[in-house]
Amino acid sequence: MEKYTIGVDFGTASVRSVVVRVSDGNEISSAVYQYKEGIEGCEGCISDTRDPLVARQHPVDYIRGIEETVRTALIKASEVSPGISQNVIAMGVDTTGTTLLPVLKDGTPLVDLDEFRNNLSAHIWLWKDHSALEEAEYITQTGQELYPEYLEMVGGRYSSEWFWSKVLHCLNTDKRVYDAAFTWVEVSDWLVAKLCGLTDMSSIPRGICAAGHKALYNTAWGGYPDKKFIESLNPELLRLLETLNGSEVKDSGQSAGLLSSEWASKTGLPSGIPLSMPAFDAHFGGIGGGVKPGTLVKTIGTSTCDLTVTSGSENIKGMAGIVKDSIIPGFFGIEAGQSGVGDIFNWFEKYIAPSGRKQSELMLEAEQLKPGESGLLSLDWHNGNRTVLIDQRLTGLILGLTLHSTAAEIYRALIEATAFGARVIQERMVENGVAVSKIIVCGGVPRKSPLLMQIYSDVFNSDIYISKNEETCALGGAIAAAVVAGAYPDFVSAIEKMTDVSAMVYKPIERNVEVYNKLYRLYLMLHDSFGISGQQQDLSGVMKELIDIRNSIRSI
Amino acid sequence: MEKYTIGVDFGTASVRSVVVRVSDGNEISSAVYQYKEGIEGCEGCISDTRDPLVARQHPVDYIRGIEETVRTALIKASEVSPGISQNVIAMGVDTTGTTLLPVLKDGTPLVDLDEFRNNLSAHIWLWKDHSALEEAEYITQTGQELYPEYLEMVGGRYSSEWFWSKVLHCLNTDKRVYDAAFTWVEVSDWLVAKLCGLTDMSSIPRGICAAGHKALYNTAWGGYPDKKFIESLNPELLRLLETLNGSEVKDSGQSAGLLSSEWASKTGLPSGIPLSMPAFDAHFGGIGGGVKPGTLVKTIGTSTCDLTVTSGSENIKGMAGIVKDSIIPGFFGIEAGQSGVGDIFNWFEKYIAPSGRKQSELMLEAEQLKPGESGLLSLDWHNGNRTVLIDQRLTGLILGLTLHSTAAEIYRALIEATAFGARVIQERMVENGVAVSKIIVCGGVPRKSPLLMQIYSDVFNSDIYISKNEETCALGGAIAAAVVAGAYPDFVSAIEKMTDVSAMVYKPIERNVEVYNKLYRLYLMLHDSFGISGQQQDLSGVMKELIDIRNSIRSI
Repeated sequence: MEKYTIGVDFGTASVRSVVVRVSDGNEISSAVYQYKEGIEGCEGCISDTRDPLVARQHPVDYIRGIEETVRTALIKASEVSPGISQNVIAMGVDTTGTTLLPVLKDGTPLVDLDEFRNNLSAHIWLWKDHSALEEAEYITQTGQELYPEYLEMVGGRYSSEWFWSKVLHCLNTDKRVYDAAFTWVEVSDWLVAKLCGLTDMSSIPRGICAAGHKALYNTAWGGYPDKKFIESLNPELLRLLETLNGSEVKDSGQSAGLLSSEWASKTGLPSGIPLSMPAFDAHFGGIGGGVKPGTLVKTIGTSTCDLTVTSGSENIKGMAGIVKDSIIPGFFGIEAGQSGVGDIFNWFEKYIAPSGRKQSELMLEAEQLKPGESGLLSLDWHNGNRTVLIDQRLTGLILGLTLHSTAAEIYRALIEATAFGARVIQERMVENGVAVSKIIVCGGVPRKSPLLMQIYSDVFNSDIYISKNEETCALGGAIAAAVVAGAYPDFVSAIEKMTDVSAMVYKPIERNVEVYNKLYRLYLMLHDSFGISGQQQDLSGVMKELIDIRNSIRSI
Repeated sequence: MEKYTIGVDFGTASVRSVVVRVSDGNEISSAVYQYKEGIEGCEGCISDTRDPLVARQHPVDYIRGIEETVRTALIKASEVSPGISQNVIAMGVDTTGTTLLPVLKDGTPLVDLDEFRNNLSAHIWLWKDHSALEEAEYITQTGQELYPEYLEMVGGRYSSEWFWSKVLHCLNTDKRVYDAAFTWVEVSDWLVAKLCGLTDMSSIPRGICAAGHKALYNTAWGGYPDKKFIESLNPELLRLLETLNGSEVKDSGQSAGLLSSEWASKTGLPSGIPLSMPAFDAHFGGIGGGVKPGTLVKTIGTSTCDLTVTSGSENIKGMAGIVKDSIIPGFFGIEAGQSGVGDIFNWFEKYIAPSGRKQSELMLEAEQLKPGESGLLSLDWHNGNRTVLIDQRLTGLILGLTLHSTAAEIYRALIEATAFGARVIQERMVENGVAVSKIIVCGGVPRKSPLLMQIYSDVFNSDIYISKNEETCALGGAIAAAVVAGAYPDFVSAIEKMTDVSAMVYKPIERNVEVYNKLYRLYLMLHDSFGISGQQQDLSGVMKELIDIRNSIRSI
């Protein structure tokens, strides 16, 4: 009798549940739910018109989303093969992160209280919320002075996207909400606890993925950061630290609990099946994409997450971070990424592209251009730089503009900029001894944009594979579930059986590689000049060299 | 009996004739003709799809344009006051420049020959044609080595827009055309010669304005450049130099000749009236705008021309150039400018602005923004930099882009960039002892954009006046005509009587001045870093400072 698991993947704007066959990873059915509480211009999230850095969500989308998608996916699966529901043996959930929710001791979100119903601080703080920029800077400085080992683990700088920045920002700006919260919990941990009927927030298990990569948790120093460090940030945070220390931190090979009968009846799943510990979407995406030592899995969506695993354990500057057991238990998981990729293209389409032209149109026109032909060069920092600069206070740049520059040229330059940013990350890995012999991409963008794929292959001068499965994050959840249910002895064997790449491989075009090597060198000059303090370079040749490249391409 | 003169102003895309009352400069009537030979995307000019630097025109637009507009303006004037035509006592013509035409000895344009009908090199080379970039660089280098005094006169660098660059580029790339031409002539000199029935190109008078500012003519070294210099550029140019040396170079207070009976009957003007020597549009614009020592007249259109006059004669680095008698005979005329202003806004509207939004809409939205609020900073080099860098191989830049940046924010940042670029020019003048106590603007853009005017006033921290007359270039032609006809003893008294400023004055807003001073400092960092070789600055704070300014404005 075939067995199945279900993976549930919460992205930035929607959630998807996928029923997967354990023997080969084949997707049997899936269902999607778009968050309803988002507002226009801020996909899937709620923003503050006075502060574009704010990005919040409402927990009701998570509750409704999981109920609706799991039930629908199971109904669809049963249409294919009746009775599948009863052969689902486990479930795995991922979300974006750090995506944080302030809750009461019993797990009630503050935003469910009348008092805080319209208070944005009491909502979910979405990963891409950057309102805690000042707090991130303060934590970085404090860490550099007192506990440099903490920062080394996260690449040398603490980000505004992460746990302590966000809670400290709430404490600094909306103390009433901070005081009312018993604790702050990753929405994935909160949701899985809810599914398992765990209602005491002082002891719910928390995922290593979020704790290790974003909350400075490390067994090397006995778990969460030292009291003195937290106190030096703000003594009020000690109360929160205590609630964290009451939790067990687990990796995704471990069980978070068993599905409650309430949620079994809501979803149609068998009661009592195990749930794997949740992880970040990109981490499960890495698993579903086929991560292993030597393989870099890039999940390219609104932003990018670059994952690989290694047996070594070195800290790498700008690589935030490297955490044991965080992707595949038994290895050091390395996570990097770009704060904006698809988001930048979407921004251009929505706010800037002329006459309401769609990306599909711009893409057709941009495909006709040769590398270097536009004379444009851009920096992909519209949403800051996550790796290797770890600096949200950086912004997008475009140069080489003339009175003839077209929207399609700018669109292509933006894609190229994200490719150059991706290459910086990969080079930093390789320079630090992390093998990258194969690149597999997954996520929504690659399949939609052959143009982007070819540009990435040319910029990397490397074959680029696409994951066969389109829903790698949800597949990763299903793989974790299969491991937790005991269907495979470990992740490596489960990944071997349950993942594959598509037959379509993008191969670098030699002529393009040459041009992009030139443009990449100019990109690095801008990258270092605007991104790194004390980097003084002579930029007076940049515009001229772009013109020379442009002219040499046009004259071919 | 009132007397009248007529001024004819050839702009980049159209020509306008204006009938003016000599006693007070009042405009009686006017008529406009749009060039017909232009193609879309290159207002009023013909471009080469393979080379965006090419901008050409057809002489037929000049012939048709003057005939049609003069006739129409006179008919309209006669409707106001019958018999005016017979009281028009002189005519003045201006065009853009360096706007060059290759001709046979009898003045026939090469493009009128069957052989060259479709040859772009045989057309008029419009001022903004930048195809001669390499030649400009070569002339600059040769000059720096052999004749530094030549380059000092034009600000230290020779531009691709100017006389010798253009003819040398034709010689280098289309020798058949170069060989077929007897000489190359400013279209203004050619046109006025035609109106006066002068058909021997070996002796037609040439305007000091074009010769002095663009062709290295200077009485200090006996006129056009030394033979050795021209020979070192290319010996083939010596033949052209000879034809130039046969011409008399005159200022616009002198007569170019008398209107032929053929052209009198074509236009309706009295036969035999004098034509003043032609000048560049911006120079007559300066006269019509009220230029005098201490007054800077800025003509703001697709590009900008900044003019003032001084009794001194120093060379100023980056100020190309300073020529005796070139604006007002008796003074040193100083000409500076920006290669793209309105053109940049038009580019944004045409190629980039979303959903076909018009500038009027973008302006309304941009007016709601406070200085610094967008966090954006731009360089206004989409068409190169004329002053003070004199470098066409520079391009536009915008930084500070986020996922929330709007089209209106970018539009405003582009306007601000042109204001910063304008401030660089004014500061360079003042630093070199040229008094600027009053700023008068004219041209098409100021009246259309109160937003631009306020931004300029804030960035300059200065009152800004608008010329009362909307057609200052044509008015300047009419003033020159009045002087040549003897209605006034000199330009100073004619300008005093015939020009005025509008009652509307833009005054700086203190709070904006402060913010713009901060942004200007950052603009200068970018300006010097990208524009000047060997300028190595730490740019890592630029994006962050823009964010700080943005946040401080938003929190007000």
